[in-house]
Amino acid sequence: MGVLRSLGRRRCLELLGSVPVGRVVFTDRALPAIRPVNHLVDGETIVIRSNLGAGLASAATAHGSLVVAYEADEIDAGTHTGWTVVVTGTARLVLDESRLRRYEEVLHPWVGETMNCVISIDCDLVNGYELTSDPA
Amino acid sequence: MGVLRSLGRRRCLELLGSVPVGRVVFTDRALPAIRPVNHLVDGETIVIRSNLGAGLASAATAHGSLVVAYEADEIDAGTHTGWTVVVTGTARLVLDESRLRRYEEVLHPWVGETMNCVISIDCDLVNGYELTSDPA
Repeated sequence: MGVLRSLGRRRCLELLGSVPVGRVVFTDRALPAIRPVNHLVDGETIVIRSNLGAGLASAATAHGSLVVAYEADEIDAGTHTGWTVVVTGTARLVLDESRLRRYEEVLHPWVGETMNCVISIDCDLVNGYELTSDPA
Repeated sequence: MGVLRSLGRRRCLELLGSVPVGRVVFTDRALPAIRPVNHLVDGETIVIRSNLGAGLASAATAHGSLVVAYEADEIDAGTHTGWTVVVTGTARLVLDESRLRRYEEVLHPWVGETMNCVISIDCDLVNGYELTSDPA
């Protein structure tokens, strides 16, 4: 039986930056919503590009910002080992021209739809766990 | 650039049942929350075991039920292909003794903590997409 071990903030952000894909979690018309997206980690900020089905984007437009969760994990179904990181923080549309250009240069959407908004997520709360088979 | 293609309900549930792990999405003290868990798909119901950090479990206990999202995906970071399925539905603690016994026999928690609640999620809304590199 595996053991969950809490990970420090720095390690969490390292792990998040080590994978290209995560899942943004938000509320869409009062229902919990989740979408896989590709991301980059820029210091203490997660950056994603997505249309987000008009959900997150329109909410962020309407209110200026909203609180989302962002999750990534790598879990080996064979060995039942791996990790998961969850960041909770304020999501904002990136509107600053120079940041926008910089992010658009290095972060390319994987889907050929209209992914015309760049969203930053502040790493306000960072929680992560390692799932290990070692009980020590 | 990849293309997203919508998947039918039956195919979504097949894909969900083909992987052991997904992520349950809920609201915990007014914040979006997400946790990876292992699951089984029993017809039109997703079954998970978890303590869920007292979040989902206590909410389900207090209100009897609550609406959650459940997501699973397999995305190949190399080829940018894969799929994602999101189910939105009512989560309930499984209290019926015979169902409880049956689920506890076939669904084993991966983590050796107190995973003493079995939760069922109705597949009310089922949405899934295939990410393919083929534009045809």
